[in-house]
Amino acid sequence: MSEKNLQWVLARRPVGAVQESDFRRVESDIPKIGDGQFLVRSHYLSLDPYMRGRMSDAKSYAKSVELGEVMVGGAVGEVIESRHPGFKPGDKVVGAFGWQLYAASDGSGVQKIDDRRVPISAYLGVLGMPGATAYIGLLDIGQPKAGETVLVSAASGAVGSAVGQIAKIKGCRAIGIAGGAEKCRYVVEELGFDACVDYKAGRLVEDLKRAAPNGVDVYFENVGGAIFDAVLGFMNPFGRIAVCGLISQYNATEPYGTKNLRYILTSRLRVQGFIVSDHLPRWPAALRDLAQWVSEGRVKYRETVAQGIESAPAAFIGLLAGKNFGKQVVKLI
Amino acid sequence: MSEKNLQWVLARRPVGAVQESDFRRVESDIPKIGDGQFLVRSHYLSLDPYMRGRMSDAKSYAKSVELGEVMVGGAVGEVIESRHPGFKPGDKVVGAFGWQLYAASDGSGVQKIDDRRVPISAYLGVLGMPGATAYIGLLDIGQPKAGETVLVSAASGAVGSAVGQIAKIKGCRAIGIAGGAEKCRYVVEELGFDACVDYKAGRLVEDLKRAAPNGVDVYFENVGGAIFDAVLGFMNPFGRIAVCGLISQYNATEPYGTKNLRYILTSRLRVQGFIVSDHLPRWPAALRDLAQWVSEGRVKYRETVAQGIESAPAAFIGLLAGKNFGKQVVKLI
Repeated sequence: MSEKNLQWVLARRPVGAVQESDFRRVESDIPKIGDGQFLVRSHYLSLDPYMRGRMSDAKSYAKSVELGEVMVGGAVGEVIESRHPGFKPGDKVVGAFGWQLYAASDGSGVQKIDDRRVPISAYLGVLGMPGATAYIGLLDIGQPKAGETVLVSAASGAVGSAVGQIAKIKGCRAIGIAGGAEKCRYVVEELGFDACVDYKAGRLVEDLKRAAPNGVDVYFENVGGAIFDAVLGFMNPFGRIAVCGLISQYNATEPYGTKNLRYILTSRLRVQGFIVSDHLPRWPAALRDLAQWVSEGRVKYRETVAQGIESAPAAFIGLLAGKNFGKQVVKLI
Repeated sequence: MSEKNLQWVLARRPVGAVQESDFRRVESDIPKIGDGQFLVRSHYLSLDPYMRGRMSDAKSYAKSVELGEVMVGGAVGEVIESRHPGFKPGDKVVGAFGWQLYAASDGSGVQKIDDRRVPISAYLGVLGMPGATAYIGLLDIGQPKAGETVLVSAASGAVGSAVGQIAKIKGCRAIGIAGGAEKCRYVVEELGFDACVDYKAGRLVEDLKRAAPNGVDVYFENVGGAIFDAVLGFMNPFGRIAVCGLISQYNATEPYGTKNLRYILTSRLRVQGFIVSDHLPRWPAALRDLAQWVSEGRVKYRETVAQGIESAPAAFIGLLAGKNFGKQVVKLI
């Protein structure tokens, strides 16, 4: 451990598109741990769309990252030193360790994980926050019934890919929206969705009409903007829209003006925003079911792996532009 | 009964603002009744914003009025002839008798009413569909808790005035939005709301901030458009928005583009459209409670009365422009 800690701190609040220069790379000493603490060496860092919100100081559900502070983020790693009774060196853990190689922790929000049967990085995706988001957002907020049609945007992403596969397990018709023919092919051929609409093909309304001839009962929203606006017109009476993310809007300087809100009234829709951290009591059931489905091969996932902590800002910028394919992680070790 | 029936039929589907020439006045014979039918002479016709939707052929929750068909509408009146075992001459009734003086009915959707203690026209307002709308939309969809802040737009109208008064009865802080100082004064001084914002004063955001210093927990939406957009930013975490009407949009040729939908996510809002006719099982409880509150003087109401069936189109156009004050009815007799 003669090594240094490498960290990415927030250097500047982005206006519009995030730039690499909004982050600053810092070399610091590896943290010393006190009584009741342990030291984690992270193996994989998670990159997720919500981080864009933390870079801004607009009112939101979670507090912003301060300028000069280490960027927030989940990571998986190994305990390498401990003065905490509950954690010992060699334990594999997942927690909010941030964009850095080493983190001291008192155990708050940290879970031990078992990487003997699944790759450790899965705990950042399908067996972690994105998986719980898909499960809770679809089942608790969307409340699909067997035979109904479930539509999900960003369908090849960490959350969207799980949403559609859970919908199939629950007996629904699953339709995705994704950017590009390759992602759509993956969503249908590998993940088993019934159809996928390529929003980049420029025929969104026509293609939705073809993919969802009986309308949409549950829409799981990850992107917002023009896609949300178009989907409103396809919702069946008493449809539910679970608003999980609005990635198309995060870099926008001028928000999109949604025109089709009249359908909320005429189709008696329920449109509900949710944040998975408000639903902690449901996580154990979500992660237990997902682990079961992953082990049975009924829920598949894919990762885009960036190499080395140096690559984190570029990989994050790529994520916001949809350049990733499945869960975006950064391999640190 | 040597008289003729006078009717207003839909002559043309309006594009944008409704015009008097969109209706055509027709003189016809008083309908003959068959077995199982009765004849009603209407005393008051109800005018309601939902009628604008029925004039258009856009997809909606209820079927459009056909060109040449009598305009739909609730009315109260008296049975003057009957071959129906359940109704006898002299019975006072409320039903969907349309924009006309006489209607034949088989009793479907018709209720007998008691006009000995309240004026018969109240059954078109606070003791009828608008009252049930306020009660069910606020209590079942909005689910306010004592101590929370309830905001309602079109607060001096038939629905809005009941919403705020029910909110007060349930221990909430009630805030209205209305057009003009006179309506706002009425809402606060006569109806007992805690505050009212005059949206015509041109300081909507500042005035909402002053009226709702602790934010809004339940918003009962009657108008849509720019007001909906502004209110989104005032909603407290886990707030509920009951979407009852979007009157600002009914005459619009180009719908308003709503920019603040990100608050649905960041404040974890539930935005739910509803139509009172989907909730028939709740009507008896709603109307029973409202009758009780009206008799105790805890729920007050006001009417704007247009004279004679000839005045119906102009009064309806005025209603869409907010020229009425409280419930708009047309006195027929």
